[in-house]
Amino acid sequence: MGIAAGIFTATSMLPQVIKTLKEKEAEDVSPVMLIVLITGIALWVFYGILRNDIPIMATNGFSLILNLFMLYLRWKYRKS
Amino acid sequence: MGIAAGIFTATSMLPQVIKTLKEKEAEDVSPVMLIVLITGIALWVFYGILRNDIPIMATNGFSLILNLFMLYLRWKYRKS
Repeated sequence: MGIAAGIFTATSMLPQVIKTLKEKEAEDVSPVMLIVLITGIALWVFYGILRNDIPIMATNGFSLILNLFMLYLRWKYRKS
Repeated sequence: MGIAAGIFTATSMLPQVIKTLKEKEAEDVSPVMLIVLITGIALWVFYGILRNDIPIMATNGFSLILNLFMLYLRWKYRKS
């Protein structure tokens, strides 16, 4: 159950990344949301390292990369 | 550390909700992202109930309500 929950929450940003890459529009996506989320996920990765918990490290590590890429897309497709 | 991480990830959708309420635009937000995320968070709530873990229940319960509201906003401000 925990693993299934982790997979869903870790991969949830994937459809957003795909949509943004297709449409080259991300103006309605909140950059503050992404920054708060990235901060939280980075803390989860640290927590996983401290507890030596591989599943927490792996799912959040994946999620961290995905969300950093989404933040880059949000910046790339901003309207000045 | 786990509590801080949980607070950041649970509240991250709040700036998105505020931005959407202000601008009445959410076309660039992926509804698939929201549905996958809501599924994952609902599984975390179940996991918290099964493990009788109050922090997991509380943070994910809050997050579930917030994301369901965001999904409603995404539907409300869709362009037909």
